[in-house]
Order: sequence, then C-alpha cells, then structure tokens
Amino acid sequence: MDAISRLLRPRSVAVIGASTDAGKTAGRPVAYLRKHGFGGDIYPVNPRVDAIDGLRCYPNVASLPAVPDVAIVLLGAERAHIAVRELAARGTAAAIVLASGYSETGEAGARRQAQLIEAAGGMRILGPNTIGLVNLTDGIVLSASGALEMDRFPVGNIGVVSQSGGILGALLSRAAARGIGLSKLVSTSNEVDLDLSDFIDRLADDPATRVIALYVEGVRNPEKFRAAALKAARNGKPVVAFKVGRSEAGAKAAVSHTGALAGADRMYDALFQQVGVIRAQTFADLLDIPAALATGRVLRGNRVAILTSTGGAGTLVSDSLGVSGFETPPPDAPTAARLRALRTGDHAALDRNPIDVTLAGLQPELLRGAIQALLDSPGYDALVIIVGSSGVAMPELMAGAIADCLHTSDKPVVAYISPHAPEAAALLTQRGVPAFAAAESVAAALDGMLRAARWNAPTAVPASRAGVDITDLPAGSLDEAQAKQLFARFGVPCVREIVVATPEEAQRAARELGPRVVLKVLSGEITHKSDVGGVAVNLTPEDIGTRLSAMATEVKARTGVSPQRFLVQEMVAGGTELILGMHRDPLGTAILLGMGGVTAELLKDTTMCLLPPQGGLAREDALALARRLKTWPLLDGFRGRPQADVEALVSAIVAFSQMASQMGERLVEAEINPLFVLPAGRGVRAADGVAVLRA
Amino acid sequence: MDAISRLLRPRSVAVIGASTDAGKTAGRPVAYLRKHGFGGDIYPVNPRVDAIDGLRCYPNVASLPAVPDVAIVLLGAERAHIAVRELAARGTAAAIVLASGYSETGEAGARRQAQLIEAAGGMRILGPNTIGLVNLTDGIVLSASGALEMDRFPVGNIGVVSQSGGILGALLSRAAARGIGLSKLVSTSNEVDLDLSDFIDRLADDPATRVIALYVEGVRNPEKFRAAALKAARNGKPVVAFKVGRSEAGAKAAVSHTGALAGADRMYDALFQQVGVIRAQTFADLLDIPAALATGRVLRGNRVAILTSTGGAGTLVSDSLGVSGFETPPPDAPTAARLRALRTGDHAALDRNPIDVTLAGLQPELLRGAIQALLDSPGYDALVIIVGSSGVAMPELMAGAIADCLHTSDKPVVAYISPHAPEAAALLTQRGVPAFAAAESVAAALDGMLRAARWNAPTAVPASRAGVDITDLPAGSLDEAQAKQLFARFGVPCVREIVVATPEEAQRAARELGPRVVLKVLSGEITHKSDVGGVAVNLTPEDIGTRLSAMATEVKARTGVSPQRFLVQEMVAGGTELILGMHRDPLGTAILLGMGGVTAELLKDTTMCLLPPQGGLAREDALALARRLKTWPLLDGFRGRPQADVEALVSAIVAFSQMASQMGERLVEAEINPLFVLPAGRGVRAADGVAVLRA
Repeated sequence: MDAISRLLRPRSVAVIGASTDAGKTAGRPVAYLRKHGFGGDIYPVNPRVDAIDGLRCYPNVASLPAVPDVAIVLLGAERAHIAVRELAARGTAAAIVLASGYSETGEAGARRQAQLIEAAGGMRILGPNTIGLVNLTDGIVLSASGALEMDRFPVGNIGVVSQSGGILGALLSRAAARGIGLSKLVSTSNEVDLDLSDFIDRLADDPATRVIALYVEGVRNPEKFRAAALKAARNGKPVVAFKVGRSEAGAKAAVSHTGALAGADRMYDALFQQVGVIRAQTFADLLDIPAALATGRVLRGNRVAILTSTGGAGTLVSDSLGVSGFETPPPDAPTAARLRALRTGDHAALDRNPIDVTLAGLQPELLRGAIQALLDSPGYDALVIIVGSSGVAMPELMAGAIADCLHTSDKPVVAYISPHAPEAAALLTQRGVPAFAAAESVAAALDGMLRAARWNAPTAVPASRAGVDITDLPAGSLDEAQAKQLFARFGVPCVREIVVATPEEAQRAARELGPRVVLKVLSGEITHKSDVGGVAVNLTPEDIGTRLSAMATEVKARTGVSPQRFLVQEMVAGGTELILGMHRDPLGTAILLGMGGVTAELLKDTTMCLLPPQGGLAREDALALARRLKTWPLLDGFRGRPQADVEALVSAIVAFSQMASQMGERLVEAEINPLFVLPAGRGVRAADGVAVLRA
Repeated sequence: MDAISRLLRPRSVAVIGASTDAGKTAGRPVAYLRKHGFGGDIYPVNPRVDAIDGLRCYPNVASLPAVPDVAIVLLGAERAHIAVRELAARGTAAAIVLASGYSETGEAGARRQAQLIEAAGGMRILGPNTIGLVNLTDGIVLSASGALEMDRFPVGNIGVVSQSGGILGALLSRAAARGIGLSKLVSTSNEVDLDLSDFIDRLADDPATRVIALYVEGVRNPEKFRAAALKAARNGKPVVAFKVGRSEAGAKAAVSHTGALAGADRMYDALFQQVGVIRAQTFADLLDIPAALATGRVLRGNRVAILTSTGGAGTLVSDSLGVSGFETPPPDAPTAARLRALRTGDHAALDRNPIDVTLAGLQPELLRGAIQALLDSPGYDALVIIVGSSGVAMPELMAGAIADCLHTSDKPVVAYISPHAPEAAALLTQRGVPAFAAAESVAAALDGMLRAARWNAPTAVPASRAGVDITDLPAGSLDEAQAKQLFARFGVPCVREIVVATPEEAQRAARELGPRVVLKVLSGEITHKSDVGGVAVNLTPEDIGTRLSAMATEVKARTGVSPQRFLVQEMVAGGTELILGMHRDPLGTAILLGMGGVTAELLKDTTMCLLPPQGGLAREDALALARRLKTWPLLDGFRGRPQADVEALVSAIVAFSQMASQMGERLVEAEINPLFVLPAGRGVRAADGVAVLRA
C-alpha cells in the first residue's frame, strides 16, 4: 500500500494533541473515530493525561507502541512541525495537519509553512489548515468537522475533494440531509503536499466512487489537474466542479485585448471544458449534478416528460426546463393513448406536458402505468416526477411505484418536491430517484447529465509546419508588418501590404495594391494607431501622398513620435471582422475568438478554448469555437448575408493555434484584430495584429 | 364589513360536502378549522351524517341555523353550482369553490364555469379550482391544503396571493420550515370573480401585512392590477412577484420587429417595473426577498460587510454578491482598528472582507463588538453574517449577539448558514435576521431590497400636441413616407425626402437633397424593401436616374409588383442606428428602444417600458430607457466616438410616446427603424418606419 492508500484507509491512527474534552476541536477526532466505527488502532498522544475515553494515551510520538499509518496533528502552527518531524522519523505514512496560521495569514505564516514542509521530509502531508478527510465507504473518519456530530451518513458513490475545510462540512451535512450518499471527502486546503489532483487521481481508481465533486478555489498545478481529470474521464467517472472567484476582474494584458477578454474565471471554464469537468454554476449544483450522475443513468437528448398530480409545480418545472433549453413536448399519440387507457379521472390532462393525473391519479396502479408509459415513450429522454403535498403524505406510494418501473429503463428519472418535505426527498434519492426542492436544480441536474454525455476529448493535432523559420524576427513587440509576417509564415492569410517611407513610395504601392488602399503609420512605439490619427482608409494613388504627409504631422503632434515608416495595404471590403488571439496563463494557453466591432466588444461576444498540451487545435474544435459565438449567424447567411468562408476561418484558427503551440514560451502575446472573413470561396485576411516575442 | 372582509375574517363558516373522514380532502376543512383554532361557528353540511367530530351536521344549505359569512364548497364541478345558488340566496358573503373541472379542462368545463358564475349572482366567489385561503393573523384556515397538517406556522407580516393552489401549500410549508412568518395566503386560481388584484388591494390596507408576495400565472385585468400594485407602493408595502412562463416564445407581430422583440414575458417585466413590483427570478426568491423586506430595514447602497468565522463560506457569499453587482470592500481604517481592538486571536483576518474572526472569535463579547463595529461603519450599507458548523452548535450565541446590536442600526442584517441547519436558520429568521442556505439567496434578497428602495413611480406627461391633425392619413398600413409624416407631426425629426415617380423627378430631388442620396421603392405592398433590391444608397444626381430604372425592373422581377413611386432621401452619415417602436399588448402599450444593426439584433440589445396610463413618457424615463441598453456606451463617447445627441434622442422618444398615447387604439403598430442619432448638437433623424392605423 502506498502512502495515499494508507491515508485513505489506515489501520492505525495517532491523534497528536488529543483532548479529553470531546466538546473541543482537539477532542473531536478521537470521539468521531470511535463514534463512526473505526476498527483499527487509535493512539491518542497527550503528555498531560493517561487515557482518553478509555483509550490509553501516550506522552509523545516516540512512545507510540507501533508506527501509525496516519497521524492527525492537532497542535497549533507554532508546534505542529515538531510532531511532524517525529512522525516522519518513525515512518508514518501521512500526517493531517489541522492548524491554521500558515501561508494564508502572511509572512510569518509562510515561514512556518516552509518549516513544516522541511520537517515532513518524505512523509505525505494533508493540509495544513485542513479539516481532514472522511472515508464513508470504510467508516473511517479522520476529521474534526462539526458536521460529524450527526450519527449517520448515507454511504454512496460520490467522492468529494474540497480546497476549503468549512465547505467539506457543509457538503457532508447537506448531502446527508438530502439522502445523497458519499464515498470519500477530503479537504486539501493549503496543499503544501497532497493536492486536489492527487485525490481526483485516487478517486478515479476507487471502485466505491462513481462521480467526483470538487470545490475549487484555485488549481495550483494545472498539468497534474489535467492528467487526473482526464484519467477520471477515461475511467467513465464524471467530475463536477464548483469554482469560486467568478466575480474577479479579468486579467490585464499589456498589448492585446485578448488577455483582458480572457479573464481569470473564463480560463477555468476553458480548462474544465478541455478535460471534461462539468462546472456547477451554484454551490447547490455541486450536490445536485453529482446526485443525478450518481445513478449511472445517461441522458441522451433534451426532451423531458413531467408527470404531476398538482398543476402549479408542474408548470414551475416546465418553465425552468424551458429557460435552460430543454423541450417538454406533449406525449406522442401512442403514449397519450396508453395514458388515457389508465382511466385516471375526468379532469386529468394527459395529452399535454406536464402530464397531470390529478389527485385521483395518486394510486399505485395508475402511477405505475403512467411512469411506465412515459419511460417507454420514444419521445422522451428523461422523466421528472412532481411530488405535491398529497404525494408527500404517501411517500412510500410514490417511491414504490417508481421503484417498480425504474429497472425497465435506463433513462434518467428525477423528482421535484413541491412542499417542504425533506424526508420524502431523501427517501426518493436513496431509492435511486434524485429529488430536488428547486426547479432550477432539476434543470441544472439534467443539464449536467447532458453535458457529461456529450463531452468528447479534444484532439491535439501535431505540428505540421516544423520548418518555420522565425530567426529573423526581433525579440519584444513586433511592429504590425512583422507580426503579420509571423502569422503568414504559419499559414494565416494576411492582407497584401508594402512598407513605405515617402509619399512617392506610397503612391507606387497604392498603384500596385489599389484601386483603393489603407495607409497606416508603422512604429513599434505606437500601439493604438487609430487613436492618434495613424490610420486612413479608402485612399487612391492620387491622394495617398498628401495624406501621408498630413498623417506624419498629426501623429507627431499627438504622440511626439516622428513616424519614419508607413504601411500601404489593400482594402478589404465585404467581410465580417473577427478578433483571433492567444493568451498565456498559468492554467494553459487559450485561443480566443471574438466578433469584431464596437457593438460586439461591448456585448463581449467571445469564445475560448485551451490549446491541447501537444499541438494545435483540430478543425472540429476550431469550428466549435466559432459556432459558439452568439453572433455566429453573421457568418452563416443571417438575413440574406452571404455565407462566410468558414472553411478558411477554421484553417486560420488552426494555423494560429499551431503557431502558438510550436513557438511555445517564445510567443508571449499574439492577436489578429481584425481578421476579415470574406464570403465563401474568398478566404480570410488578417488586416492588423500584434505579437510579442521573448528573446 | 364588506364581502371580502367577511371572506378573510368570517365569524361563521359553512362547509358544504364535508366528510367525516379527516384523511380525505373533503374532511380536511372542518378538521383544519378546529385544529388551527377558529373561534367562530362551523356548519358542516352533509345529508348523510348527523355530526362530524362532535359538530352538528346539516342536511342542506336551507337548514343552516344562520347565514354563514363564508361557505367552503367541496362538491364536484357537476354539483357545486347548486349549492352556490342556495348560498347566494341566503345572503352568504362569499363561497370558496375547490372543485376542478372548469375552464382549465376545455369546453364542457367552460360551460360549467359560466353556470357557476350565473348561480353566484351577487355573492363573491373565490376559485373555482382553488385550495382556499389561510388567515394566519387571526388563526382562520379556510383551506384543504395538505400543508395544514402541520401543527403550527410562524405568524408574520408577509401576505401571499397565488394563482395556483398547489403553490400556496408549497409556500406555506416552506415558509414555516424556515421560520418566515406569513399573515394571509390566498389562492385565486380560476378567478371567475375575485382575482389577484382584489387581494393585493386588500393586503395593501391590512395592518398585519408589510410585504406582499405573488405567484403569477397571468394577469387577467392589467388596469386593476396596476391600481392595486400602485396602492401597495403608496402604502409603503413592497410587492414581490414570481411569474411563470419565462420560456414562452415572444409574441408575433405582422409588420414590425417590435412585437417579436417585446415578447410576452418581457411585457411582464415592463408592467412590474412600471408599478414597482419586484420580480423574483426563482421560486425560492419569492420567499427570500419578502423575508428580507419583512424586516422593514432599508438598503441604501451596495456595499456589504461579510462577517465570518469560517473561510470557505465567506468566500462563497462574497463571490455570489460580486456576481450580482454588490461590492465587498475591506473595512475602512477606523473600523479595522475597532475590530483589531477586539483581540480575536492571531489568525483572524480583520483588514479584509470577509472579516474572519476565526473559531476563536465565536465568543459573545467578540461577536457583539464585531457586529457593532460593522453596523456603525459608514463604509457599509448591509451586513451578512456567516454561520458555520460551530456557530450552528451554538445558535443562541449567534442569535443573542446579533439581537443585542440589531436595534442600534436600521441597516439590513442577514445570515448565511453554511452547513445543513434548518433550526438555526429558522431561529435567526424569527429573531429578525433572515437566514439563507444559498449564497444566491443572500444576493437575491439584498438585490430585492435595493430595487425596492430605488424604485420611483414613473411620471406621466400629459399630451402637449393635442392639435395634431391626422385625418388625411389612410387606415391600414401606411407607406414609408406617410409613416414618417405621421411621426414628424408628433415632433420626431425625419430625414428630408421627396416622393418621385420618374428618373427626371429623381434627379431633381437628388440635386435638392444631395450631394449623395438614398433611393427607395415606395409601395404599401412591399414591406422588406432591401430584400427585393428596393434600396440603393450613396447615389449622385448623375447616376440616380439609371438606378431608378434598374430598381423598377429588379423589384418587378422579384415581387411581381410594378413600383410606381420612389423615395429620394438625404443620406445620413456618422450617426448611431437605433430602433424605436411601440407594441400594444393586453398588459399595456410598450415603448421599445433597441440598438440597430445585425450584431445588436442577434444579441437582442433592447429595453422596454410601458406607456403611463395617461400621457407619454417623462424625459427622465426616456433617458433611463436609453441608459439601460448594454450598448449605451456607443452613444456616450465609447472609444473616442463622438458624444451622441442624447438630448435629441430623449426628445424623439418622448414625442414618439406621446403619439402612441394620444392616438391610442387608432395606432395599431408603429416603429422607426433606423433612427439615426447624430453627434451632439446635430439631432436625430428617422430614416425609415412603419405604422398601421385602425380605421
């Protein structure tokens, strides 16, 4: 057994600093170990007492009768490292350090944390600042969480890893109250050693765990996280994550818009999407979605039947499903006929959805018949059962009727409980029908199931342009012409352009690129050219010379920089402007696509995905990126517009992504803005761009 | 006492069709009346038994010993009308009819409903298809809701009106479990007589009611609703509404975009906004927001202090508040100093927000000191207290500390309960600190308080152009020129234009309006001119003649219509395109403003408000309409764009709204699309539009 296995399933546990007072935090671990049925050896360590609750107490680590698999260290941050050093010396597999007062509190704490790491040596550490871990599968509780005051917890197949200790207790007690069974819960907190990903990896192999739920404050090691999440995906175990920090301001970038548009929180969206982690939008969803996935049922489409005996609640759920993009079509003719044959009473509404059997329908035979008919119907992918107050009064009736039908179908079946009735909800959940008290939870759970079923691992496309030579490009901010040369070498089509210095050269260039051209100032010192009068469009060879002189004067007046070089470009007309950028972030390299123009900018219509670890984007992933734009119809023939050259756009995104992949850390920032997408068959053109290279 | 007063507070109640079996629906009303302490007379009516639970039972209505104030009619839809007729004849004030099987089930039901109305004559009816009403203030329960099986309910100051019976039970039981006190609950359901607005009106006058919560399926009489809601607003009683039907498709309109953009559900947003009703976005919010408002505290700004003893949950709430637009600034220097002086322990984080006193801070003196410091701080408008599992273990500690400080401030104080701890939450709620189990609920409750505090009744501006003559305009769809003449007469500036028939006339017009002009086909038969080649821009007097002939040919080829007339217009350049429309709906007349162009259309950037019952919009309301556009910055100097002529835009919206007001039903549809807003000082121009007049 390796150290993490011994941590999760120890045969012996030392509790350093155990207190005789079970009401105090330091008294809880021993009390909880025994209360929840730990079968191994417990060694309390406390020099001031001989025994705790009948267990022999040891004065120090050295006097322990055997090497414990795990030690729970309850000492304060000032002393914890001493015990940790002694435990490591004796060969303890892992120590759980509960004390706070480490790096989360400032410099002195950070010094204590370094001291702790040094003391641990080869011994694994969970924490510090953790509330510990709970292995419900095996009845092993290594935690001081007050939530463990409860006597019993439903054991199930959802593993939980939380970067907050308090949240672990919240999830434990909330799940228990709802009848949601958990397998293991771990709070990693400061993560000086064992982190989120270590436990994702371990739970991915745990036969008792079918779904993994994460409470994330920040991923410290993205590579490790990616590997662990992908392993869970390969093993068929969905991972659901709630991430705090949604309201943080976007990351700032010096030169391009992409950094600001990417934003710290959106990077997590992209990371989760890449590795198949389903993001919970609310903290409640962090139990709602796993509860639905824990049934092992698969949602294959978005058509939902709602079976009810009370009107209002059915409408509420139908409305919420509609807002979330689900369909609630009426029963097809054969299903409606089967429902009518049940004779549920005069006032039942059986040809609509919600299917309302009314109070009269609350009889075992009728309920069974209706549930079976709806599960059998090819018109539905899932069934929601509404439980009103009359159903709550007869919880066994409902649960029994459902249980009789459940095994005949693998479609998801969930319940919405209209009145306050936590016991009825817990009963249904325990019987395999996840029950929810909020219509939004029903929608979120089904949406999570749909996302889990639809996710496909992105394919990395190995670099195909290994021979691209960029040794002639300087380090630092490239000017516009150099940036586009870079993009072009990797296969992104750019506007034709000529660098000029004088009015005469500009005239010659305009004649070559005309009939009408764009004139821009070209200087590494000026980033926002149009703000300082450095861009003129729609020029003819006749007027470009005068315009160049005027531009030189204006730019000089507004910036103090006397421009020496200018760019004459072909005018691109009739296209749709996009922005295509990349953003390097600790979580990975993001490729960002956005609609151009100020309106789209204000409405923030951008999509993002992460570059695969090896290679660029596959064509289907590049296309998916474009299709997720809210304004995608602009490229797709909306309102009689010409169909855009989507093939060429996809090729440009792929080429841009390969550049980002091959250049790696050498490429600090890159952005094409605008990228003109012309009508089908006419390609795309990068008309402006920035790039920053590392030396 | 009038009939509604007698219904809400009867001295005697007849129960028609009462059953001796308290387990059946028909047995519940008598059982519940007695169980919840009704002090008046109860007359069960059932010809087959002599007594129910010791109460004398009467064979029929005629034999009742006195005229009851209220009758609960438990007979089926086939027989209820007979009892109703007899009750009316004896002078009963109101009957509550529970049976279903009326208009909600189809034609036969609709006939029964008509029969019921006829039978009632002057007697008031609640229902049918209702679950009845519950007056908790006076302990009078006139309902068969299974939720009344509970023994006790917290009595409070929230009045509830629900258009669904099942939902009434859900709200009653959910509120009770959370310690949220209610005053009255009424389920109006089919509303053959008494409706939502009757009870809003009544609750607005009820001294026991401070907040009104509505579950709305549809407002049948908007005028009555408006009057009742405004009365509640005048009386200082906030109204909170949850409306189902959010996922319905938008209303369809024949000619303009406005109808489709308005949408059935957005009309409710506009109606609620007009009368100060706060819309709950989730069903849970329908208790969350009233629970916060019921404290009577006022939220004056968006700066929130979060006091916690556990890290994770504080972050969760802070994050959720951030997403909802609240600020959680760190304590100002004097407040931080006061907090530090409390000596809460080494690891407390007192200079940040959430303010974390850690477990060590869970002592009465410390908590009191921290709460008082935060309530006193001028840097905060509200306080959220986080209760972790340790706090839950000591609920009185927390409740006591808060209670000691609460009276010293009128700022809102709410609690978030991190673990599952419904009893602790109910205790705090009952002590005046609304407690929530979801971070989103905390944000929704505070947001509701802020909206309640910030709402101002819109001002109606009486018509100022009473003399506008439109007798020369034909009925039906006006052509573009006529539509703009109409708008211009009411004061909306339009582009200069001339109607022409021949190439020569077009040339003359182009010379007058040039240098460059727009040419459009002018025909009442062609609505989407640009789709059929009927629009050409940027024309000179030289080329307009040829273009006119070509256009005539193309339009003829594509539509079969041979155009006889054309419009030559001045070209407007350099402006921002908006759409300004009006939509008549049973809920009221909406004025809709939207950003023009396909991008904005795809992203649905539109705002709406209702026309006041008398007159047009006030300038400040027209400005607010524009400022609510997500792309408002385009008019406000975004990215170096010129400041738009907002004054002129406001004038145009006001003029357009006055037209809609004065013309009333005569104006079926009207829309300006586009309305060009030019840079400041240069005004606005309606460049195209449609209008449909009723004969």
